[in-house]
Amino acid sequence: MRMVELIHKKRQGGRLTQEEIAWFAKGAASGEIPDYQLSALLMAIFFQGMTQEETVDLTLSMARSGDMADLSAIPGVKVDKHSTGGVGDKTTLIAGPIAAACGVKTAKMSGRGLGHTGGTVDKLESIPGVRMDIPRERFFEIVRETGIAVVGQSGSLCPADKKLYALRDVTATVDSLPLIAASIMSKKLASGADAILLDVKVGSGAFMKTREEALKLARLMVDTGNGAGRRTAAVITDMDMPLGRHIGNALEVAEAVEMLKGRGDQRLAELCRQLAAGMIVLAGLAEDQEQALAQTAQAVESGAAFEVLCRMVEAQGGDRDFLDHPDRLPLSPVCREFPMPETGYIARLDAELCGLAALELGAGRETKEAQIDYGAGIVLLKNRGEFAEQGQPVARLYAQTQAQCQRAVKRLEEALSITKERPQLGPLVMERIAF
Amino acid sequence: MRMVELIHKKRQGGRLTQEEIAWFAKGAASGEIPDYQLSALLMAIFFQGMTQEETVDLTLSMARSGDMADLSAIPGVKVDKHSTGGVGDKTTLIAGPIAAACGVKTAKMSGRGLGHTGGTVDKLESIPGVRMDIPRERFFEIVRETGIAVVGQSGSLCPADKKLYALRDVTATVDSLPLIAASIMSKKLASGADAILLDVKVGSGAFMKTREEALKLARLMVDTGNGAGRRTAAVITDMDMPLGRHIGNALEVAEAVEMLKGRGDQRLAELCRQLAAGMIVLAGLAEDQEQALAQTAQAVESGAAFEVLCRMVEAQGGDRDFLDHPDRLPLSPVCREFPMPETGYIARLDAELCGLAALELGAGRETKEAQIDYGAGIVLLKNRGEFAEQGQPVARLYAQTQAQCQRAVKRLEEALSITKERPQLGPLVMERIAF
Repeated sequence: MRMVELIHKKRQGGRLTQEEIAWFAKGAASGEIPDYQLSALLMAIFFQGMTQEETVDLTLSMARSGDMADLSAIPGVKVDKHSTGGVGDKTTLIAGPIAAACGVKTAKMSGRGLGHTGGTVDKLESIPGVRMDIPRERFFEIVRETGIAVVGQSGSLCPADKKLYALRDVTATVDSLPLIAASIMSKKLASGADAILLDVKVGSGAFMKTREEALKLARLMVDTGNGAGRRTAAVITDMDMPLGRHIGNALEVAEAVEMLKGRGDQRLAELCRQLAAGMIVLAGLAEDQEQALAQTAQAVESGAAFEVLCRMVEAQGGDRDFLDHPDRLPLSPVCREFPMPETGYIARLDAELCGLAALELGAGRETKEAQIDYGAGIVLLKNRGEFAEQGQPVARLYAQTQAQCQRAVKRLEEALSITKERPQLGPLVMERIAF
Repeated sequence: MRMVELIHKKRQGGRLTQEEIAWFAKGAASGEIPDYQLSALLMAIFFQGMTQEETVDLTLSMARSGDMADLSAIPGVKVDKHSTGGVGDKTTLIAGPIAAACGVKTAKMSGRGLGHTGGTVDKLESIPGVRMDIPRERFFEIVRETGIAVVGQSGSLCPADKKLYALRDVTATVDSLPLIAASIMSKKLASGADAILLDVKVGSGAFMKTREEALKLARLMVDTGNGAGRRTAAVITDMDMPLGRHIGNALEVAEAVEMLKGRGDQRLAELCRQLAAGMIVLAGLAEDQEQALAQTAQAVESGAAFEVLCRMVEAQGGDRDFLDHPDRLPLSPVCREFPMPETGYIARLDAELCGLAALELGAGRETKEAQIDYGAGIVLLKNRGEFAEQGQPVARLYAQTQAQCQRAVKRLEEALSITKERPQLGPLVMERIAF
């Protein structure tokens, strides 16, 4: 097989065969195919797209390019939940324990975040003592005992995706739906879950800016997952405004605790219940979403869901005291309030700009090597759709220096629009696919 | 400037500015921009094209990425002729001396051929003693004295083009009109000629397979050359059948001698007169093509054109005795005739397959390192449109071994179609642009 012929075929709009896709994914992982040919193929795919079949083939080939996790040592249906990323998204720490309390098994391998705030791994590490480098046997044991564990990605997971992802980033070929779908789904397949629930975000703080794009991506991923033999479903959720009230690593853990205790932002709570219920349905532990929702309500009210999070944190080396008393979690020393510039309703609180504000405060990393300040971030006292008088605080910012707060305030000023009329909020869960 | 942003802009159909194009051409030449980003940009250009202005900018930037030849030490208008390549194309050795005999100055820097037969450099080197590595001062002196000299490309001519051309070859981005035009024209600009005559071939033995494509490319190159301040014109010529009767290096020199003596294939003779006349017009040495054609007839009849070739060959170290007696030129020892398989007219004699036959005989090189057999090749006794009885020889093949001849015969069998009706030949010069 010759790579230049594969590139030419795709460039002309042809369909690559399973053998061709497997061959180039292998060559990408091994380094046998030079980067300049891979990037030319990626650009040709950007323009010509891929069929559903090609996308499934690419997904499977990338998944098989490295280690495939075998979760069969854990009894029951293993369900993974994946979000395409947003601002203030701590749903894994909430929906995961709720679903686990209802019997779902989640053995999650998660990456570190690059961007506004950390990933789930970083959020959990903000709890003093928590370790992410759990050996496989112990990882499985924790899942068997508590229903859920989250560890950092280790070993050689999807090296073909790793190579292609890095190339896409520097060759302007990131925003291709089949490439996005194959990248996400290959990691999900390699992680070994039997069923996958996708939370595809749409809006200013998300990768997908329109509902149509998000729907297309979600359907493609659902079809790809099912095509690869994993039960897969998706929700499309709004990410025009930050999710919940806290943005930042330890701050998001604290908000997750609030949620698991049945308190706090109702919009976030609703999303977490929907996600947990979806996981329960995918695991075959409820007849339908309604029945599953009832189970999630019970899991929160009884305190069982909160107990799951505590047990997982303890099993991973952390002290549950930080969860029982979230005010003991790290909090950066410099605090500054962001006041409402004029009286009115918040018509817009741009999620992306809020994310950039959190990044200015030190809550995220711009480069792989950057250090995260676990205690930095934003507490929103008001969110979109809410009313405030001039001078009333909209947010509290936490950082190491006043200069950081100053830069974050600039971002929030850009993020905020005020109106005299009460704005209408659309639904948070915009669409459910395949469940 | 960030390369990923340039790629993105072009991918979205945007126009690159002069500064952006100059920046990436420089980065391509220096190696500062990695190959994987260059190839992604090339593929984006393949899909989105380039405007006339972008093509001129790219051409100039690539020309300026290395040494720009300064021909001002040679008085008069320096005219270069460039052919996009074909089978049996020895026009430089014929039209060049005819034009020189009429006062045109041609200081040609030529590359070695990769493919069916050698390039002009290889053809000239088949004359024993002829050298292509002439120092610049002596090169200019020969042009001043004889009107023409042909040397091998030396130094750092268009390193940006060299890099991009090599990448295009392995990333399926060769057949993009703006990239082809910029590649050809950048080398012409760097070679320093004041005026350029392009011979764009169309047909089975050429890169452009249809007249429409060839016209587009020719117009683009003419506009690019004129846009860059060089007087540029073009002809579109037929390359469905081999050009003239000889294919092979020394064999083509022998045919060039025949032509300069006013004998031989009339179709080839007509093309060479048209090309020489075009060069004369571009040099401002005739009012129009008609007047220039009269000058070329005089140059051939008087023997002046043949004398120019002899003087050039002598100046470059060769012995004119080989031109006075072309039968003394190298000729490979094994000769085999290819007979007409049935009585009729030759309806088709596919140029590309004839070229591949010559390659089998040893007349070309498949890799840069391969050695050419100067005496190998094909003498066509019949060409398209001509009649022959069954068993009458259509061609004589020359090579080192019978096995080579055997393989070449197979190609010629594929190349040949016979008909009972006399076929009509289209014109050799299909179109003239800008002169």
